[in-house]
Amino acid sequence: MNTPAHPSAFAPLQNDTFLRACLRQATDYTPIWMMRQAGRFLPEYRATRAKAGSFMGLATNTDYATEVTLQPVERFPIDAAILFSDILTVPDAMGLGLSFALGEGPKFAHAVRDEAAVAKLAVPDMDKLRYVFDAVTSIRKALNGRVPLIGFSGSPWTLACYMVEGAGSDDYRMVKTMLYSRPDLMHRILAINADAVAQYLNAQIEAGAQAVMIFDSWGGVLADGAFQQFSLAYTARVLAQLKKEHAGARIPSIVFTKGGGLWLEEMGQLDCNVLGLDWTVNLAKARALVGNSKALQGNLDPNVLFASPAQIEVEAAKVLDSFGTPHRGAGTGATHIFNLGHGISQHTPPDHVASLVQAVHEHSRKLRA
Amino acid sequence: MNTPAHPSAFAPLQNDTFLRACLRQATDYTPIWMMRQAGRFLPEYRATRAKAGSFMGLATNTDYATEVTLQPVERFPIDAAILFSDILTVPDAMGLGLSFALGEGPKFAHAVRDEAAVAKLAVPDMDKLRYVFDAVTSIRKALNGRVPLIGFSGSPWTLACYMVEGAGSDDYRMVKTMLYSRPDLMHRILAINADAVAQYLNAQIEAGAQAVMIFDSWGGVLADGAFQQFSLAYTARVLAQLKKEHAGARIPSIVFTKGGGLWLEEMGQLDCNVLGLDWTVNLAKARALVGNSKALQGNLDPNVLFASPAQIEVEAAKVLDSFGTPHRGAGTGATHIFNLGHGISQHTPPDHVASLVQAVHEHSRKLRA
Repeated sequence: MNTPAHPSAFAPLQNDTFLRACLRQATDYTPIWMMRQAGRFLPEYRATRAKAGSFMGLATNTDYATEVTLQPVERFPIDAAILFSDILTVPDAMGLGLSFALGEGPKFAHAVRDEAAVAKLAVPDMDKLRYVFDAVTSIRKALNGRVPLIGFSGSPWTLACYMVEGAGSDDYRMVKTMLYSRPDLMHRILAINADAVAQYLNAQIEAGAQAVMIFDSWGGVLADGAFQQFSLAYTARVLAQLKKEHAGARIPSIVFTKGGGLWLEEMGQLDCNVLGLDWTVNLAKARALVGNSKALQGNLDPNVLFASPAQIEVEAAKVLDSFGTPHRGAGTGATHIFNLGHGISQHTPPDHVASLVQAVHEHSRKLRA
Repeated sequence: MNTPAHPSAFAPLQNDTFLRACLRQATDYTPIWMMRQAGRFLPEYRATRAKAGSFMGLATNTDYATEVTLQPVERFPIDAAILFSDILTVPDAMGLGLSFALGEGPKFAHAVRDEAAVAKLAVPDMDKLRYVFDAVTSIRKALNGRVPLIGFSGSPWTLACYMVEGAGSDDYRMVKTMLYSRPDLMHRILAINADAVAQYLNAQIEAGAQAVMIFDSWGGVLADGAFQQFSLAYTARVLAQLKKEHAGARIPSIVFTKGGGLWLEEMGQLDCNVLGLDWTVNLAKARALVGNSKALQGNLDPNVLFASPAQIEVEAAKVLDSFGTPHRGAGTGATHIFNLGHGISQHTPPDHVASLVQAVHEHSRKLRA
C-alpha cells in the first residue's frame, strides 16, 4: 500500500459547512450534496464514461475517477464531494468477479450460495483496493480544499445481498433463504464483510476521505427482527472499528438505510454522527426521535427534480421546514444536511439541480434569520 | 348487469373465523390466508393456466377463475378464499388496453401521460367487468360455505401508477413527474379511480364477496406528505362509498399499503376494519398504535417459506407472539389475521405452506390457552 497521505499534502478546507453540520455544530445555511451526484445525468460524466469504455474502467482509473467526482462540484455550489466508485468493490476484491453487462446492473461470476463458498471467503488484501485509495488521494488533491470529500462503502448486509444473489434482485430469495435456513452461514459472511468494510473505510480515511458513509441500500427489505440481527448489528460492528479522527481532524460517519424509517429509534443508538433518511420519513418526527443525538441527512424524492424550478423550490422548502430551524448557537444540537432520499435519476435536467441547490441555500438562510 | 345474487342462493358459512377476526370478535385460533395463494406455486394452478392459454384468459373465464380460486382451499385448511383476478381490471375497463407479454408484467397500450388522455378518463361501465362479478358468484357457490370469499381491487394510487407508467416501474418517474408538476391532473385521475374502485367493490359485494381488500401496493413509494395527499385520501374516498353491509351480513374491509408502516397512525383513522402490514412492521408496536380500532393482518416474510418446516414453525410463532394474545372475551378487541407481508413466491414448496398453516393454527390455539 501507499504511504498514507500526510495532511500537509492537502490544501486547507474553504467550506466546512457540511462537516460542521455532520458534527451538529451551527452553520449559516443547510449544506447540500446529492447521492449519485457524479453520474449519468451530467453530459460531462457521460463523455468521461465514453472515454473510459466501461463502468469499472471509469472506477478503477484514478484520473477518470477524479474527473467525474469533481464534475458536480464544478457545476453546482454543493457543499461536499463524494468519491466516485461502486459499492461492490469489496466483494470484487474478495475474488467474486464483478462485471457490468451493458444496460444491466452488476453481476458476480462467483455467487456465494453454499457452505463451501462461504468457507472460502476472507477479508481481502486491501492492496487489491489500492485503486480506490489512490483515487481518494487524487480527488482530495484536485478538490484543493473547496469542499470536503466523503468516502463510502456498502453495508455488510447490502454487500451480502449482492454476494449471495450474484446480482440485483427483486425478491432477495437466495439471500433470505440462506438467512432463514442457514443463519450460521449468513452471520459468517456478515462478520467478514463488516471487518472488510471497516478496513476499507479506514484506508479511505488514511488516503484523505474527510467523512465516510455506509450505504445500507437493502436493509429495508428485511423483516423487523431480522433487520436488527442481520443488518444493524453488522453496521455497528463496522462503526466500532472506524477511525473517529485522522490527522487531527474528526471524521464524521453517516449511515443510510433505505427503507429503514421504522427502525430510527434503534438506529439512533448507533455510534455514528449522521443518519441518512429516505423520502418516506417525516423529518420533524425523525428529529424528535433522534435529532439530538445525530445529524439527519435527506430526504427529497429525486423525482421532484422533474417538476418545474418553481415547484422544486416549494418542495425543497417543505423538506427544510419539516426539519425546522437547525441548531444555531454554540456547542452541538440538531442539524440537517440536505440530500435526496435516494440517488439522483439519470434523466434529471442539470439546470433543475442548480435550482434545487440555490433554493436550499437561500431558504435555509431564511430559516435561521 | 346480472341481478345481484340473493343470499339464499349461497350455502351457510361453516368457518367464520376470518370474518370474526376482521370484526375484532374473539376466535378460537388465529385465521390464516395468504396473498396470491391461488398462484403459480401450485402445480394445479399451472395446469389450469396452461389450459387457459393466457393470464387474462384465466382471469376472464368464470370456470377457470373459480377453479384456481378453490385450489388452495382444497389443499390447505386456510380460513378464507380470495377472488382470482388482476388488480388492473378497472383501468382495462376504462379502455387502456391491458396485456401480459409472456414472462413480463402487465402493460397498457394507452398510458395516461397528458392532459388529453386524462380528459378522456371516466368511471367505466361496470358491465365491462361483469366477468369479475360472475366469477365472484360462481366461486361463492363453489365454496359452498366452507370459508368466506374476499373480493379486492387495487387502490386508486396503485392503479394510477400503472396507468401513467403504462407498466411496472422501478422509479415511478412518469407518475411522480405528473404528481409534482401537474398535481391537478393527478388528482383528477385519482378521483375517477376512487369512484370506479368503489363501484367495482360494491358490485363484488353484491355478487357475493363477504369481505373486500384494497391493495395499495405502491403507496409505500410516495414521500411523506405525498402519501397522505395522493394515496391515503383516495383510499378514504373509496371507503366512504363502500357498502358496510349486504344481505344482512357485515362486510369487513381491509386496506394494505405495502411499505406503509410509517403511516400506521394515520391509517388507523381510515374507516376500514383491518389494516394489512408488511414484514418490516413490528406487530406489537402496530397493535399499540392501532390495535384497538382495527384488526391487523400480516406479516410473515414470504421468503421464510424457503426454510425448513421446523424453522417455518419458529418464525410463524415469532409473528404470533409479536402480536400477543388476541382478544378472547365478549364484544370487540384487538385481533390478528395471519398472512404474509406480500404475495407468496412462485418458487414456494407447497408442503411448506401446509406446515405454515398447521403451525399458525396450533400455536395460536396455545396462545389463547
